[in-house]
Amino acid sequence: MCSNCGGHTIHGRHHHFGWDHAIPPVATVAPGGHMHFECIDASGGQLNRDSTSADLATLSFDKINPVTGPVYVDGAQPGDVLKITIEAFTPSGWGWTANIPGFGLLADQFPDGALHIWDYDPHVTAPALYGDVARVPLKPFAGTIGLAPAEAGTHSVVPPRRMGGNMDIRDLSAGTTLYLPVEVEGALFSIGDTHAAQGDGEVCGTAIESPMNVALTLDLIKDQPLAFPRFTTEGPVTRHIDRKGYEVTTGIGPDLMTGARDALSAMIDLICTTHKMDPVQAYMLCSVCGDLRISEIVDMPNWVVSFYLPRVVFE
Amino acid sequence: MCSNCGGHTIHGRHHHFGWDHAIPPVATVAPGGHMHFECIDASGGQLNRDSTSADLATLSFDKINPVTGPVYVDGAQPGDVLKITIEAFTPSGWGWTANIPGFGLLADQFPDGALHIWDYDPHVTAPALYGDVARVPLKPFAGTIGLAPAEAGTHSVVPPRRMGGNMDIRDLSAGTTLYLPVEVEGALFSIGDTHAAQGDGEVCGTAIESPMNVALTLDLIKDQPLAFPRFTTEGPVTRHIDRKGYEVTTGIGPDLMTGARDALSAMIDLICTTHKMDPVQAYMLCSVCGDLRISEIVDMPNWVVSFYLPRVVFE
Repeated sequence: MCSNCGGHTIHGRHHHFGWDHAIPPVATVAPGGHMHFECIDASGGQLNRDSTSADLATLSFDKINPVTGPVYVDGAQPGDVLKITIEAFTPSGWGWTANIPGFGLLADQFPDGALHIWDYDPHVTAPALYGDVARVPLKPFAGTIGLAPAEAGTHSVVPPRRMGGNMDIRDLSAGTTLYLPVEVEGALFSIGDTHAAQGDGEVCGTAIESPMNVALTLDLIKDQPLAFPRFTTEGPVTRHIDRKGYEVTTGIGPDLMTGARDALSAMIDLICTTHKMDPVQAYMLCSVCGDLRISEIVDMPNWVVSFYLPRVVFE
Repeated sequence: MCSNCGGHTIHGRHHHFGWDHAIPPVATVAPGGHMHFECIDASGGQLNRDSTSADLATLSFDKINPVTGPVYVDGAQPGDVLKITIEAFTPSGWGWTANIPGFGLLADQFPDGALHIWDYDPHVTAPALYGDVARVPLKPFAGTIGLAPAEAGTHSVVPPRRMGGNMDIRDLSAGTTLYLPVEVEGALFSIGDTHAAQGDGEVCGTAIESPMNVALTLDLIKDQPLAFPRFTTEGPVTRHIDRKGYEVTTGIGPDLMTGARDALSAMIDLICTTHKMDPVQAYMLCSVCGDLRISEIVDMPNWVVSFYLPRVVFE
């Protein structure tokens, strides 16, 4: 129970791996309940401020991406929608970004592990330093917000699904209202994978992975069909990072995935040429602050995918 | 010759259909040359302020998407890069948006033609009215900017290619610098398909298609390899439209194209439910102001594509 607001606090020790509606809830709330969640980092505590890239070799994937919960919402039934008002984040001030072998949009081009440890302003008013070359503006959010699926068994936490999960949507930040379709009684809500910053795409596979606490309110909308998650942002979503404009590379062709890879590869080349950065360092920088956009998806048979890197990071 | 700046003006009658390096240049400029281009609308004059959806049935696709040019740039050789500084647009104040049968991201769901004629502020300071329901902020740009390909023959203007062309990138607006790879001697630059507004994706297949004049400077960078177009924006790219935040729908699954279609379909449903709009009208509104973004492309095997509709349009 929170002494300030009277709401529940779900502690970090109440976490689970994977989605399974058989996992017993750790708390029950009435619709409209204000709550706090302690979220541990996406390595489940296997990495810390002193870790090095050598530690990536011994990462246990059984402990990846823990989520705090589940919380049972009174009265929630399949066919309802859970409305999550995301109110505030309390970041820890440290985080990590890794190129994990076998994971990421250019996994074939970057087979070796790499790790960057971030020490950042927990008030997130100052950008985080990336060596002496780049400064990344921060915008905390939760990468994984989801509900238990109707289908029995344990489902990997890695892929997102229609009930949400590991969506890694950069704009699920404070002030956003998220709507998720309920598939089981009680909804069984969990949250984790908190990020201090990320670009659209999360291209290297990780963001600024960082433990933090989240305050939110869970509410219920009865009998509303919803195929996939949707959300509402109360204001602009890129003003923390767009002030100086963007460098943009493109990939053009008949396959969106190939276009995304081409655009990202071109941006990594551009950063390396312009700023004398190591390619894997540029790849990780792209992941924490660059955005993948579909510029054109109708001019048959070639689509345009663009990668937007905010110029403010090199200011 | 422009009486103000001394630069060339390429008139709208000097247009061509398709890309072909055998088309004789209409002008020759030295690198650094400032130029004006008159761009006719993407229907090639087949539609006008008085057109109705019935006129779509008789559209000749041979006259679609004319481009003004080509301009021969002195000294340009294959392997160089043409640097295009996009300086200003002089919009005409009218435009059209259509659902053209067989064309667009949801062509299968919208088989019937529809046309909207826009009458907008040519100074683009006021949003364009979409009936009495929506107001679309304007940001003029050229949908088609490209160079002639090395490969002989006439190539359709519809798909974009590595030398640019019909890229329909919303941010190729005033203040942006575009870099295109040169494949033939003289580069053979053309421009057209001017739009008063468009969202990332151009999802219904058309934007606010509108004749306008463009001022730009062509310059040359020698011997610089470039796989695909890239560009630099001198400032933020969404501040004309992001002030009130966004409604966002998602599509989640293993195929980016399916995800984009799902996200767009969900947004059309949401608009129709909330604002009592006809589905094809909502589809066209999405095309002129909503953005497709790749939120997540690494959480195997499911990716997240999001459709962002700026809330300011319903203010």
